[in-house]
Amino acid sequence: MARLNPDVLRLYLVTDQSLAAGRSLADVVGAAVQGGVSCVQLREKHLGTREFLAQALMLKALLAPHRVPLVINDRIDIALACGAEGVHLGQSDLPVDEARKLLPMEVFIGWSVESMDDVLQSAVLPVDYLGVSPIFSTSTKTDTKESWGLEGLTLVRTATHLPLVAIGGIHAGNAREVLRAGADSLAVVSALCAASDPHAAAMGLRSLCDEALKARR
Amino acid sequence: MARLNPDVLRLYLVTDQSLAAGRSLADVVGAAVQGGVSCVQLREKHLGTREFLAQALMLKALLAPHRVPLVINDRIDIALACGAEGVHLGQSDLPVDEARKLLPMEVFIGWSVESMDDVLQSAVLPVDYLGVSPIFSTSTKTDTKESWGLEGLTLVRTATHLPLVAIGGIHAGNAREVLRAGADSLAVVSALCAASDPHAAAMGLRSLCDEALKARR
Repeated sequence: MARLNPDVLRLYLVTDQSLAAGRSLADVVGAAVQGGVSCVQLREKHLGTREFLAQALMLKALLAPHRVPLVINDRIDIALACGAEGVHLGQSDLPVDEARKLLPMEVFIGWSVESMDDVLQSAVLPVDYLGVSPIFSTSTKTDTKESWGLEGLTLVRTATHLPLVAIGGIHAGNAREVLRAGADSLAVVSALCAASDPHAAAMGLRSLCDEALKARR
Repeated sequence: MARLNPDVLRLYLVTDQSLAAGRSLADVVGAAVQGGVSCVQLREKHLGTREFLAQALMLKALLAPHRVPLVINDRIDIALACGAEGVHLGQSDLPVDEARKLLPMEVFIGWSVESMDDVLQSAVLPVDYLGVSPIFSTSTKTDTKESWGLEGLTLVRTATHLPLVAIGGIHAGNAREVLRAGADSLAVVSALCAASDPHAAAMGLRSLCDEALKARR
């Protein structure tokens, strides 16, 4: 398995159609990618399979010219059918080992860690990045455990060499400290999907990411 | 693709845990298989992926010694992960062509037809049987179109050579006429899952199937 270049994760948009205030996913994602989003995860738990695939194919076509990878949440079948570059698995999705067997080698796998046990376990699993989830408590995702906080994120950083994608309650106001605490990447849902100007919001977040990672090198 | 032997479909149980009145799926399915069920479809739309896989693996282990095929509803990823013998697709699931590309050749595909257009289209699709759904109106499945009725089923019979699995509102009291109208197989949900004695209920339905098919040959 080729090692995933963490740069592709830098600013990571997770979709939530319900936050898009009547705008299409294509419009919101298109604007956010123009603004600097480097990776997009399709997470639409409420969609039926065929509609989920239709959204995935739409995003794939939208993202491919920008060389922005598409990540599918949970559904390996959808990822295979649309030719996604990555898959993101939570603790109630397929076990990572099972998913790895079903996916072509070049498809990367992200895994949500909700406890230090998960982080330690990731060392022996075929995962390419960890989603540290949630950093702050959030109303977007309610099925997760306690939030990590910045201290938790720093602990995770000391425990693994995998790229860390921080998610949960992240916005322009706290992005710097999340990156300083050890995140390689910021994943956002509402900070882009609900933004009145997703293009400008992405530009702002992307420059914070670029700045922090430049300082680190 | 090897042609599917319609005998394996003869009495086809579709699971619905919510109808099992507190009994485990293993208990209900185990008893029904002892009674003569020849094929089992796992359809539990509300389950998360990991729990769905756990149920699939449990059923696979339960059914394998009886050489009863396991069919997974909708989820190609689960079918692949558990090594199911078949997949059943509805009109809002993955398109049949897409599913066929993702599945090993030996995994059969059933497809729900809800209109004569679907039936005619099936002639050019890689499907192994048709689920004629629903025959009678039913409270188990509410997302389907008008019911076919016995006349509709007979029309479908004249329009295709594929094995026909009749589903929707079928029980011991109307099974004979459904078979007479052209079904090769009876699929039941509540007639077995909600039966106080699934073993006896399966025996009764199976003997009706065997009788009808013997008379036909």
